[in-house]
Amino acid sequence: MKAITLDSTKNSNLLLTEVQEKGVSEGEVRVSIKAAALNHRDEWCRQGLYPNIKDGVILGSDGAGIVTELGEGVDKEWLQKEVIVNPAMNWGENQKVQSASFEILGMPGNGTLAESVIVPVDRLHTKPDHLSWEEAGALPLAGLTAFRALTYKGSIQPGENLLVTGFGGGVAQFAVQFGLALDAKVSTSSSSKKKLEKAHALGVTHVFDYQYSNWTSKALTNVDGFDLIIDGAVGDTLGQLIQVAKPGGKIVFYGATLGNPSKLEARKIFWNQLQIIGTTMGSDLDFKNMVSLVCKKKIHPIIDRVFKFEEAEQAFDRMRDGKQMGKIVLVP
Amino acid sequence: MKAITLDSTKNSNLLLTEVQEKGVSEGEVRVSIKAAALNHRDEWCRQGLYPNIKDGVILGSDGAGIVTELGEGVDKEWLQKEVIVNPAMNWGENQKVQSASFEILGMPGNGTLAESVIVPVDRLHTKPDHLSWEEAGALPLAGLTAFRALTYKGSIQPGENLLVTGFGGGVAQFAVQFGLALDAKVSTSSSSKKKLEKAHALGVTHVFDYQYSNWTSKALTNVDGFDLIIDGAVGDTLGQLIQVAKPGGKIVFYGATLGNPSKLEARKIFWNQLQIIGTTMGSDLDFKNMVSLVCKKKIHPIIDRVFKFEEAEQAFDRMRDGKQMGKIVLVP
Repeated sequence: MKAITLDSTKNSNLLLTEVQEKGVSEGEVRVSIKAAALNHRDEWCRQGLYPNIKDGVILGSDGAGIVTELGEGVDKEWLQKEVIVNPAMNWGENQKVQSASFEILGMPGNGTLAESVIVPVDRLHTKPDHLSWEEAGALPLAGLTAFRALTYKGSIQPGENLLVTGFGGGVAQFAVQFGLALDAKVSTSSSSKKKLEKAHALGVTHVFDYQYSNWTSKALTNVDGFDLIIDGAVGDTLGQLIQVAKPGGKIVFYGATLGNPSKLEARKIFWNQLQIIGTTMGSDLDFKNMVSLVCKKKIHPIIDRVFKFEEAEQAFDRMRDGKQMGKIVLVP
Repeated sequence: MKAITLDSTKNSNLLLTEVQEKGVSEGEVRVSIKAAALNHRDEWCRQGLYPNIKDGVILGSDGAGIVTELGEGVDKEWLQKEVIVNPAMNWGENQKVQSASFEILGMPGNGTLAESVIVPVDRLHTKPDHLSWEEAGALPLAGLTAFRALTYKGSIQPGENLLVTGFGGGVAQFAVQFGLALDAKVSTSSSSKKKLEKAHALGVTHVFDYQYSNWTSKALTNVDGFDLIIDGAVGDTLGQLIQVAKPGGKIVFYGATLGNPSKLEARKIFWNQLQIIGTTMGSDLDFKNMVSLVCKKKIHPIIDRVFKFEEAEQAFDRMRDGKQMGKIVLVP
């Protein structure tokens, strides 16, 4: 089968190549991929930023497709089912935190950027009817991360003020969409006028351009403090987020693309009863609840562009450059 | 009546003096003070570290005594009742955070270091029978802060691993005692061998001397991560606390005597699903529940030393120098 593998001998670090299909073991299924999607993680894999990463691995965590082969012990009902794959493997039983054996599909094991992927049957969820293949393939990892940040970690309530920073990234986009679906009053920030226009069109109340240093005063004038802030940047913007958080509010971050903050105003945090909460990915329960919300509220993931496998390098470059507005999808 | 007031013309900044008693207004009561106690806050008031602080104010937040006079509209039942005073005024209805009009008895209004104090009747709680006057007077502010940190903020559960840093301070001492009462497995840290011995005697499982840089490895070997850490120091020890927190755990801090941290490892926080939570004082509900626990479990606050009002300067100096093991009490 065709697959996009890591190859450090290439300039692009990527190779679209023919790979020998493996056999399906007990409790596993083969899913014929209809659409896969990129996450920042895939670009970091391409750059070799993870330990244990090896040439030849098939990249990709997000995917949707049709079950074409069942391993021993798998219910016959699954055959030919249209499914999306939960890429969070071995979370374990503890809703608070992943187990030590937690891993994500697509590294170190083979991922979804291939004509098919083999996964344990418990990773499958029925594809929501209202989603196209591209939309279904775009949902998993970013949707899961956003959903856990908003609900289990952020406990968002109807009518609360939610700020999602960096609109345009996959998690941020889902956090905005899920926040709206859960009846929060959603604001978002970006440095791109075009992305902020898109956010407005989705139903976001206030948008802020974080390139302007006075965005925090504008936010406080317009919103009177955010009950919940979802962020993936941290760095020195954390101080600004602490400023615009409502006393008693929460800042939940799922990444730190800007690195560590150079300072933290402890007094503001304790006096204002703030919570700074880290989150990553999500549990099986989070995934199940996320798919339920997507079905119930007929949410459509925003697709930036659909690339063919042959255009993988362009797709990865677009992710690296942060030009996308929505998910970057790849189809075999 | 005699009272300890702020007087910046004195070397000690304190003056034990005769003060005109004020009248009791509608909804208020006069409490004849049997014992009062010091908090760090009182020392910071003495040092003039708060805005709005003025010479002549009677210091002191903690106190217990007998109701000797009722304002209009106050239930007659309160007269001659033995009470402790909740010094957290105007918290408001929101359990998450204090209202904008929140203030603490003893600054800017007159406090408990006097022969009597006037407070709204809703600040009164019946003195638990098993407590001496000194113990009852020592309970309020530090007990409230510790209780909220442990329960509403920390959600401590029976059997969980709790670390309370800086044993010896009032809040830390109560956090240890309440943690034990709530069936947590409690560890604590201090730089004083004597204080750690005292902690052991109370029933603490592990004690750590944070002067030794390897205390974190010792903690991880002995305890395998803390579900909850209660801290009042922050500064660069925050990084150590993040190291010894169990994945999925919480660090709740009620102060920052070591100032702001110079760095924060964002990746460790999100990957380990940690929560860094600020807290201060507590709501009326927190106070009520705290007193209930003290009654139910017959908890006795630890008293460091009892001073007479005439020895106020020594008492404050002892607080400033951090020599105390338990609460510093003052009696008229």
